[in-house]
Amino acid sequence: MTTQEILEAARGAKPAVALSDSGTRDSALLGMADALCAPESMDAILAANAEDMAAAKGRISDVMLDRLALTPQRIEAMAKGIRDVAALPDPVGRVLSRIERPNGLVIEKTAVPMGVIAIIYESRPNVTSDAAALAIKSGNACILRCGKEAWRSANAIVTTLRQGLRANGLPETAVCLIEDTTHASANALMTAVGYVDLLIPRGGAGLIRACVENAKVPCIQTGTGICHIFVDDTADQTKALDIIENAKASRPSVCNAEEVCLVHSAIASEFLPKLAQRLGPDRTAKGLHPVELRLDERAAALIPGTPAGPKDFDTEFLDYILAVKVVDSMEEAIAHIAAHSTGHSEAILTRTDAHAALFTAAVDSAAVYVNCSTRFTDGGEFGLGCEMGISTQKLHARGPMGLGELCSYKYIIHGNGQTR
Amino acid sequence: MTTQEILEAARGAKPAVALSDSGTRDSALLGMADALCAPESMDAILAANAEDMAAAKGRISDVMLDRLALTPQRIEAMAKGIRDVAALPDPVGRVLSRIERPNGLVIEKTAVPMGVIAIIYESRPNVTSDAAALAIKSGNACILRCGKEAWRSANAIVTTLRQGLRANGLPETAVCLIEDTTHASANALMTAVGYVDLLIPRGGAGLIRACVENAKVPCIQTGTGICHIFVDDTADQTKALDIIENAKASRPSVCNAEEVCLVHSAIASEFLPKLAQRLGPDRTAKGLHPVELRLDERAAALIPGTPAGPKDFDTEFLDYILAVKVVDSMEEAIAHIAAHSTGHSEAILTRTDAHAALFTAAVDSAAVYVNCSTRFTDGGEFGLGCEMGISTQKLHARGPMGLGELCSYKYIIHGNGQTR
Repeated sequence: MTTQEILEAARGAKPAVALSDSGTRDSALLGMADALCAPESMDAILAANAEDMAAAKGRISDVMLDRLALTPQRIEAMAKGIRDVAALPDPVGRVLSRIERPNGLVIEKTAVPMGVIAIIYESRPNVTSDAAALAIKSGNACILRCGKEAWRSANAIVTTLRQGLRANGLPETAVCLIEDTTHASANALMTAVGYVDLLIPRGGAGLIRACVENAKVPCIQTGTGICHIFVDDTADQTKALDIIENAKASRPSVCNAEEVCLVHSAIASEFLPKLAQRLGPDRTAKGLHPVELRLDERAAALIPGTPAGPKDFDTEFLDYILAVKVVDSMEEAIAHIAAHSTGHSEAILTRTDAHAALFTAAVDSAAVYVNCSTRFTDGGEFGLGCEMGISTQKLHARGPMGLGELCSYKYIIHGNGQTR
Repeated sequence: MTTQEILEAARGAKPAVALSDSGTRDSALLGMADALCAPESMDAILAANAEDMAAAKGRISDVMLDRLALTPQRIEAMAKGIRDVAALPDPVGRVLSRIERPNGLVIEKTAVPMGVIAIIYESRPNVTSDAAALAIKSGNACILRCGKEAWRSANAIVTTLRQGLRANGLPETAVCLIEDTTHASANALMTAVGYVDLLIPRGGAGLIRACVENAKVPCIQTGTGICHIFVDDTADQTKALDIIENAKASRPSVCNAEEVCLVHSAIASEFLPKLAQRLGPDRTAKGLHPVELRLDERAAALIPGTPAGPKDFDTEFLDYILAVKVVDSMEEAIAHIAAHSTGHSEAILTRTDAHAALFTAAVDSAAVYVNCSTRFTDGGEFGLGCEMGISTQKLHARGPMGLGELCSYKYIIHGNGQTR
């Protein structure tokens, strides 16, 4: 099908999904999970994935290849993910607020599906099933547009998922995969006014910038995280070392990992040597990957490391690299964050309540932490059960986008003849 | 100041407004209201308005001239509007939800100001004070860009409002008026990424389309209302006549006025003659402006009126004109609305509960009414106390935008050393 035909098909599926009841959608989700685990579809998905892997080998990095690879265990994990989504509370039809007016009108602000959600992503096949499950659970049709290298796998997965939809009376076009993997189809989604109710780009900074620049449909800016941790002069330094090591090195490739550490000058000469020890020799001794430190001038005067270059405080390293800067006050830390943050997640480590209060008020990011790791910015960790991505914009949703954030609302008003 | 200088000034004012406490902002609002009523500023505003009126006379319609005109009473009404906003509850800092996690993290989803809100509007001077008051109350700085014909009045008003800001320690640049009234400044606001956190166009369809097409900053689509009322076969016809007359003729120039009436064929021959009588001869007899009916073929076979042209079911008349169509079922009514509505407000008049339930579920508009007038889509009528406009989009805010909708949120997370 052409991209235009797919846009029309998804839009056509919208009312049936939106008006389906919770039980039907949950049954469809369980059917989708079961279909993934059926031996014949598992074989088909693995075969398609093997073709993707063969075509990609030598053309993408080993890390990317590993993300692309499917195994029976990974497919079972995808099915479990769908079952977990099915078990969450239904976000559709929830009355968000109810107002009774003096004239007798009853006004209910009611959660409703967005309509058609388009997701542009890259090579991880599990995004295909995750995104489809979240969309169906929230009463939305979805259009998936994956990267070229993952298309055969995604197509086999979508073909399988559609069995679960059909078996429960939902249109299979409620989950569509774009066939064209060139830039043309991404652009078509960005400009599909009247077809796409919400566009969610999940991928690198280039894709997200292209969407923000070009999208004429409603779009959520996701992901890029230049996350800061500020170690205040009253921080518990033992906890600070644990938190920073966790935030930086537990999984450096993710968007909620720390990229920049700001240290109060009053404790810098005491704390920085401990930090250098913890992230360097201590990790090496344990067989862990050490963290390279990129140091501003004042930090470089205290500990060994690489002198920070001009871009090091504006880079999402996604690697075992941490930029370190000494600041003279919390106000300087807040100003640095305002100038360099991407608005994702920042933390203050302090034992001064007033500093925690000012930091959380003044730092304009999706998640602002006191005395814990930035790694908690995640739908599961926040208790939302799941997420479609992390929004770094301020319109509509901010932070992890769970099922509630995949819904809009409308006002339903009951009267008995009222006029104005 | 150039538009760029104004963008920078407003962004510079953002932290001071966002971090000010509720009492300071309320005092500033009361100061703004008092300043408007001071004799010397009233004189200055009326003098500026007289210049605007003189320059506009003969160049804009009498209706537009009346909208532009200020009197001492209208200025006092503006001041009262500001005082009413000051009296509303503070939307900033409200904890929208609170989650305690098993690991001890306390996650508070907290309402925060958007930052800088830009409003592009036309000629009504009261929008200047209303928009400024709503922005300040919700902790936002604002940039106002009014139409050329209203600029002198708006400038005199903003100059006055700034007295209230200064007297309460808030930066006067928290309320800025763009000096350039050409298209260039509107375009600059639409593309002011990093300066404007939310753009709200309030005006005609052309302005709103331009914003949706060109905006690279987050934008709310407001206003256009092709509102439908469907008279089901079980409707209370006496109430239906009252509701339709109210929805169409109480104030035809507003966006929540009815433009299209759909009538079930089972009652058309009985109901349409009554409707024609009520909207035509009955109104004329009372000295009221009659409503012109634009009739589809089936309606035209039953009552006198103008045959509907091809565009009459896709036009926001904003006038004493009502398009009328006969449909054979509620499903046909819903399909017609899906194809022709702008997603603003629609109503069903029925005594069949199942029809009301399906209509409210299936019609994808900001406000869906049962047995009352569409004219209630309004911040005041919804009990929100005020509004910045009516959103017809599904991202972020839908329907009347009160103070809550001028806020974003962030997650504030308190821990005691948690790592992941």
